Amino acid sequence: MVATSQPLAAQAGLFVLREGGSAADAAIATAAALTVLEPTSNGLGGDVFALAWRGGELHGLNASGAAPARWNMDTLGGNPIPRHGWTPVTVPGGVRGWADLHAEFGKLPFARLLEPAIQYARRGYPLSPEVARHWARAAQSYGLLKGPEFAEWFKVFMPQGFTPVAGAVWASEDHARTLERIAESHGADFYDGHTARAIDDASRQAGGFLSADDLAQHASEWVTPISAAYQDHEVWEIPPSGQGIAALIALRLLDGMDLPPQRDDPRALHAQIEAIKLAFADAHKLVADQRHSEVPVEFLLSEAHRQMLRQSITDTAHDPQTRPPSSGGTVYLATADGEGNMVSFIQSNYMGFGSGVVVPGTGVALHNRGHNFNVEEGHANRLAPGKRPYHTIIPGFLTRQGQAVGPFGVMGGFMQPQGHVQVVLNTVRSGLNPQAAIDAPRWQWLAGKEIEVEYEMGQPVIRELIRMGHTVRVQTEKASFGRGQIIWRTPEGVLMGGSESRADGQVAAF
Amino acid sequence: MVATSQPLAAQAGLFVLREGGSAADAAIATAAALTVLEPTSNGLGGDVFALAWRGGELHGLNASGAAPARWNMDTLGGNPIPRHGWTPVTVPGGVRGWADLHAEFGKLPFARLLEPAIQYARRGYPLSPEVARHWARAAQSYGLLKGPEFAEWFKVFMPQGFTPVAGAVWASEDHARTLERIAESHGADFYDGHTARAIDDASRQAGGFLSADDLAQHASEWVTPISAAYQDHEVWEIPPSGQGIAALIALRLLDGMDLPPQRDDPRALHAQIEAIKLAFADAHKLVADQRHSEVPVEFLLSEAHRQMLRQSITDTAHDPQTRPPSSGGTVYLATADGEGNMVSFIQSNYMGFGSGVVVPGTGVALHNRGHNFNVEEGHANRLAPGKRPYHTIIPGFLTRQGQAVGPFGVMGGFMQPQGHVQVVLNTVRSGLNPQAAIDAPRWQWLAGKEIEVEYEMGQPVIRELIRMGHTVRVQTEKASFGRGQIIWRTPEGVLMGGSESRADGQVAAF
Repeated sequence: MVATSQPLAAQAGLFVLREGGSAADAAIATAAALTVLEPTSNGLGGDVFALAWRGGELHGLNASGAAPARWNMDTLGGNPIPRHGWTPVTVPGGVRGWADLHAEFGKLPFARLLEPAIQYARRGYPLSPEVARHWARAAQSYGLLKGPEFAEWFKVFMPQGFTPVAGAVWASEDHARTLERIAESHGADFYDGHTARAIDDASRQAGGFLSADDLAQHASEWVTPISAAYQDHEVWEIPPSGQGIAALIALRLLDGMDLPPQRDDPRALHAQIEAIKLAFADAHKLVADQRHSEVPVEFLLSEAHRQMLRQSITDTAHDPQTRPPSSGGTVYLATADGEGNMVSFIQSNYMGFGSGVVVPGTGVALHNRGHNFNVEEGHANRLAPGKRPYHTIIPGFLTRQGQAVGPFGVMGGFMQPQGHVQVVLNTVRSGLNPQAAIDAPRWQWLAGKEIEVEYEMGQPVIRELIRMGHTVRVQTEKASFGRGQIIWRTPEGVLMGGSESRADGQVAAF
Repeated sequence: MVATSQPLAAQAGLFVLREGGSAADAAIATAAALTVLEPTSNGLGGDVFALAWRGGELHGLNASGAAPARWNMDTLGGNPIPRHGWTPVTVPGGVRGWADLHAEFGKLPFARLLEPAIQYARRGYPLSPEVARHWARAAQSYGLLKGPEFAEWFKVFMPQGFTPVAGAVWASEDHARTLERIAESHGADFYDGHTARAIDDASRQAGGFLSADDLAQHASEWVTPISAAYQDHEVWEIPPSGQGIAALIALRLLDGMDLPPQRDDPRALHAQIEAIKLAFADAHKLVADQRHSEVPVEFLLSEAHRQMLRQSITDTAHDPQTRPPSSGGTVYLATADGEGNMVSFIQSNYMGFGSGVVVPGTGVALHNRGHNFNVEEGHANRLAPGKRPYHTIIPGFLTRQGQAVGPFGVMGGFMQPQGHVQVVLNTVRSGLNPQAAIDAPRWQWLAGKEIEVEYEMGQPVIRELIRMGHTVRVQTEKASFGRGQIIWRTPEGVLMGGSESRADGQVAAF
């Protein structure tokens, strides 16, 4: 079973499962296909995180890249980190992540996994409606960027004769060839081969910081996942530099609170919103690359800290005075094979297509993850060479009394830990099946006392939240609430999945 | 029949009708009662406008007051006109309006009309829920004002032992006595008697501009109502200095447009919103006191102007770059007697209780209508001594082929012309009965491309308006959409009324 936001990508993963591939093989095939089929949210020039379950154990992979060696606070000259261009481009860790995940958990030859992606890139495919919509919007924003480094984006993503509408067919021979080189070289080409040189050349020409050395020295990191209990389940996330800990802090706050039983009782929603605010306050202040900063993970998940935070939750909305991070685009996918192995996998170029920079001749769209560094002196997440930035993309995994339940995720920048909290509560607290747990109306904390909710939340709930002091916006743009995928596996081995109805997603199984 | 937003006030008017009073008598009785029963929106220190139908003719009364003789641009010293305190207090024209309306159209002795109001002021009454809510909010905002001139407000409206909640009883002996003096003197006391002196003294002490001279020289003005055709009906408003002309300009734009039949078809709503923006652009620029400024009324209602404006309406939302006026509170009432006479009557202290200044010992809360002057050089509505400001409160009247249909109004600051347009379209275009015409979900243009709509408009309509370029906010605070009252009279003489369900209103009849 494969669940993700793009049906053709789900099929790529399923095809690999049919061929005898493992859950990890399917994840890589789907991920590679997604770089072609959903370039509006991810690409070859981005990062990856994954949680892989095998043989009763959960393994974490932080495949994110660090700031180039030549990039530091001085180079900013007092200005904020730009969103576009070469500056915010950290080392793309994604392709290395595929290779490492495969080396550890793969069964089929690596090259086979990339075949569907290569075919789609070469022959093309018709855009799904949601992808088309975001593609058109990106064309509008990138159209405002000046600078030669952006020309390649238009050459690749808005070629002559192509208009991004549902059904329009798009292909990229460059992308296909880059995938072929990655396939043959088990990813090495990206870090130390033709692609690496192309990236290096383009960077030099544009005055970027990223260099071949940065690429050559990049490595993924295997990490021990962190967890929190919620009722009789355990929720697992990747430890910092990722922000998954925010979901855990919030869940620990909610666990054991005496909430009204109704799923959407305003007081229950209020508690979740307040919990998330407190969790984000911690995360924004403390989450950073643990190889560079001290991140008090144990303390943040401790009983003492929970008790202290609990006291901050009152009957009325609280303004946490915290700076909300910017939005981002992501793709999330979940896979499960016939042997009980499962993978929770997430991949992103950060803000939509990313930095707007596409490496000429390669089809590689580079992310702008570096934009997520802080610049304040003393801040744990402050930009430094070789340091990985605070990361918003978070794959989740659920267990119950140590037994795997399955992978889940809700991609979408700032919405991710909030989506994790809501999906877990919908599942564990309200007993909803995977599809219902994803479809149920959502809330999202924006900043201060501002939250947005989906129209289907209903006017009585909205009024009550307002009465409790929240500033409530009814958001009819559903993409704002993220896109979730779930695969749960019963003790008998039956797989059931849920896929975001707000997107074009699908659960594919055989 | 009497329709207004406070049931006890409606009864006051009905009582007078039973006693043989005319529609005008009932209007005055209700209006006087409203100064006691709904001080959150009006008071003795405010203005009045009315349209009176008698014997086949419609008469207009502009009972608004001008800026004091000593108040001029220099006194502002470059600062904006404050909301509170003595500065924005223009001469209160309301009480004179009662007297003049009575002199022309009344049947019963003037003093009798004020009896119910006096009783309520003396004995007290329990606050209705909506009034209580606004009263509490006013207490909060006025509590932030510093200055001795605000102390009386608290003495009168937040006396010892009183908390503004639904059911709490409030009374004011001062108010009762002032009403008695007004009753005995046919209003003269307010402009040249005990009350006038009290106002004058308080003004001196506080350094205000309003003086006994201003009061003594004040007079109402009988005006010829202006009108516009909509389908086979005619809609009547008071000419400038009131803003009723904005409703007429918008209705003329909509008349004859080929709108989809469904009442809430997004394209029909879009046309109304765009029409109102254009109408307000005209009004904000040109509406002013015709005794001081040239207001091209005829041109604004001309065919040439309509054609020109029509061309500005496209398929997408337009940003009119116009400054929206501030909100205001008002009370609207409609009366009809057994002889076919009808009155459309509106009264207001502008922003809630008004300036926050209450004249000691009188219970008179002074309005802050002067805040609605412009200060820009050359602007038609620029502050000048003896000039009446742009006025937001607008009583409406509907006829059909010259026959009276009846009075209507939707009070609420900026919402008023917008409410008039929607009520007329609901009635004439969509054939809704008076209650349904008022209850139907509303939209309100705020500024630029921003509009707000009621939740009941529904998500499909909301999305479509967004797609057409509007920035749509779902507003669950229903008070934002104004409060309407309607009385229609059939050719057979049957009266039917509608009263705002968003407020505590009532249609009272016998």
